Amino acid sequence: MKNLRLAFASLLVLPATPASAAPDDTVAWSLVEGLTTEVGQRLAGTEAEARARDWGMKKLKALGFKNVAIEPFPMKAWVRGIETAELTAPYPQKLAIAALGGSGATPEAGLKGNVVVFSTFADFKAAPDAAVKGKIVYVGHTMRATQDGSSYGYFGLLRRSGPNLAARKGAAAFLIRSIGTDNHRVPHTGLTNWEAGVEPIPAAAVSNPDADLIERANARSPGGLQLALVLTPKFVGEQMSGNLIGEIPGSDPDAGMIVIGGHLDSWDLGTGAIDDGAGVAITTAAAKAILDSGKKPRRTIRIVWWGAEEEGGLGGAAYFAKHKDERHALAGESDFGADRVWRFQTKLPTAAAPLAARLASALAPLGIAAGAEAEDGGTDVGPLVATGVPVIALGQDGTRYFDIHHTADDTLDKIDPKQLAQNVEAWRVMLETTANAPEDLMAGRGQ
Amino acid sequence: MKNLRLAFASLLVLPATPASAAPDDTVAWSLVEGLTTEVGQRLAGTEAEARARDWGMKKLKALGFKNVAIEPFPMKAWVRGIETAELTAPYPQKLAIAALGGSGATPEAGLKGNVVVFSTFADFKAAPDAAVKGKIVYVGHTMRATQDGSSYGYFGLLRRSGPNLAARKGAAAFLIRSIGTDNHRVPHTGLTNWEAGVEPIPAAAVSNPDADLIERANARSPGGLQLALVLTPKFVGEQMSGNLIGEIPGSDPDAGMIVIGGHLDSWDLGTGAIDDGAGVAITTAAAKAILDSGKKPRRTIRIVWWGAEEEGGLGGAAYFAKHKDERHALAGESDFGADRVWRFQTKLPTAAAPLAARLASALAPLGIAAGAEAEDGGTDVGPLVATGVPVIALGQDGTRYFDIHHTADDTLDKIDPKQLAQNVEAWRVMLETTANAPEDLMAGRGQ
Repeated sequence: MKNLRLAFASLLVLPATPASAAPDDTVAWSLVEGLTTEVGQRLAGTEAEARARDWGMKKLKALGFKNVAIEPFPMKAWVRGIETAELTAPYPQKLAIAALGGSGATPEAGLKGNVVVFSTFADFKAAPDAAVKGKIVYVGHTMRATQDGSSYGYFGLLRRSGPNLAARKGAAAFLIRSIGTDNHRVPHTGLTNWEAGVEPIPAAAVSNPDADLIERANARSPGGLQLALVLTPKFVGEQMSGNLIGEIPGSDPDAGMIVIGGHLDSWDLGTGAIDDGAGVAITTAAAKAILDSGKKPRRTIRIVWWGAEEEGGLGGAAYFAKHKDERHALAGESDFGADRVWRFQTKLPTAAAPLAARLASALAPLGIAAGAEAEDGGTDVGPLVATGVPVIALGQDGTRYFDIHHTADDTLDKIDPKQLAQNVEAWRVMLETTANAPEDLMAGRGQ
Repeated sequence: MKNLRLAFASLLVLPATPASAAPDDTVAWSLVEGLTTEVGQRLAGTEAEARARDWGMKKLKALGFKNVAIEPFPMKAWVRGIETAELTAPYPQKLAIAALGGSGATPEAGLKGNVVVFSTFADFKAAPDAAVKGKIVYVGHTMRATQDGSSYGYFGLLRRSGPNLAARKGAAAFLIRSIGTDNHRVPHTGLTNWEAGVEPIPAAAVSNPDADLIERANARSPGGLQLALVLTPKFVGEQMSGNLIGEIPGSDPDAGMIVIGGHLDSWDLGTGAIDDGAGVAITTAAAKAILDSGKKPRRTIRIVWWGAEEEGGLGGAAYFAKHKDERHALAGESDFGADRVWRFQTKLPTAAAPLAARLASALAPLGIAAGAEAEDGGTDVGPLVATGVPVIALGQDGTRYFDIHHTADDTLDKIDPKQLAQNVEAWRVMLETTANAPEDLMAGRGQ
């Protein structure tokens, strides 16, 4: 009986249930509302992230997922401390700042120093060490919004690698204009990376209005700025993070499984609504719709709520280390907020070209157009995709994403329930289409 | 010669210089840019407000105003301290809060208590004392934006009189949803008033996203919220504030003078850009345009940068006490941001009806329509207007004003230079029209 059904499924190309332009959603909203209300911030490696995993495990079980489990992994954890900054000359002004993830600390009483101002990262890179040694360095490098978020790669480099370079050049501390596109007094945090052997220096982002102020003050008095800075974050040693997993078992183990999800951890300033409560909620709600349809999918659908993404994709790496030899037919993550999906991109085996065409037809009623070939699919599925696992990316409108990203403003009110529901419907249509596709998605890969 | 000119001016109704729809402005922008950059916050009664007065005196003199002077007055000053709040049950969550101006303090180590949640001010007023005694009281009372800002009167009552009522009912502390229309993590401060004999209790606003969170948490667990609060503001005794004054002397002292301006003090969280750096900049730039026209106005134009408006209109009261017996022909203030003027309102003597008609014609090209009769004209000119001084109100679009008002977000970037310039042009046209009007604006009032 099982084989007959498989044969039937593999021959008949079932159309996806027609997509609705304004679908209802209660599951995704309930998940992200619950997570932001009952847990809130869930910085990787902290007890808050552990509470979030426990909260999620109960939710996945209650929703009817199978094989629900937490897969713990160790990580080096960092926590925020006190953070204040004040221009002391030529004009006394308090600044809104946030330590970058992984920042070093000032002495407890803080440090004071002259500020060297650079307008762009390139200007800073070109500066001789002598120009910054012992100084507090500020770099501008104003980010602008793009629909696909592609400018984050370029502008985000300043945050990711600027502090390390400043430490190598001998700077006392490093301040950046927030990698963000808003004009609120909410600085944008985010990970910074240190090369082995480089001692972390204090590194923080100032809000965009404060960055404007620094630049205006420096224009009046070039090189004349002085600043008092207190930053007391610290690394708290090895702590546990973890991935949370749940499944809808499929009928055909040979067809491989589809793995989707978002990341459960968040930065500590907001409540992790758009980054990435939305992603776990969207993908889980879409899978729940498949579950509720009563039709067992051909392929197993695995939901993952990754841990410690913000600390450099640690959850994605841990998942890969543990599961890389399993049969992954397709991977996709949702980690770009909750505004509408406007584009989908795929990287599928050549033999699955008809599937890509069916996806295009199925997603078009939701206003979603096919884009170019998907790249790595995102931080958490990246390691799988790098080994050849097919990938789908449902691209959200990111025009306002970097207004909110990594700030205290990442709260539930930023999510538009209608656009959230469109995301869920897009993922449901994608899952229904791909989980039941007769094409061989494992073509050319192992077993 | 003087008399001949006066006679000429009083007979000929000169049309105002044609208004331009997109005028240039450099004076107003330069003033508000300078004030927010070189001074920043200027809380009433502090050395920052004193620096702002000194800064302004230099500017008014440099711009060519006459009789520039600071008129000091004493006030009871209050300064902000540490402020933190955290829900401790049922869900640990940090809250973004700001003490209200005049708030009492918690013990240095803070206070902890059960939270009683009310959705509206009316619900809180109706509650028996026993329901709130010893508790931390939270009141919602969600404000919505209006173009004319009229909802501030109603919703602002909660901030102004709620804490006093809570103290009388025996509450341990009082939290309100911000009196503001944004959804950022920037709580809105503002003055609260205490009746004589009432001991101030700790009173603070939570940002709107945090208010949403409190209300969602309370909906899950009615009466089950616990909160830890630290607020250490204090009154610092009698300090000096002051008004800054400058004039363009007119040719006809008998015609009375026109007094216009904005308030120089600001709350301490932002840099006082829209409240009210914009108002002093707009009115000063408009007067400067009259000065630069080379035509001496019939009536003296007096600019006032009032002090300590935020503490209850102390500068307006001090001005009135000192100047009430002078010949005021007309009063007007700009204290509602820098978005476009869309309406003007006046209260003029019956004999000056033709002037109102000429103002309507002169302001129409700027997209400004005549509204109903002006009321008190605002906090600072209110005492004058209450004694019968004619008033003009150039009403700005306030749709986004209460997104920013009294928050850390009140920074220069919130000012649109084009709309600021339209304000300056509206005030210039108003000044040119009224300062030279032949009508008797002192009709029925003294001398």
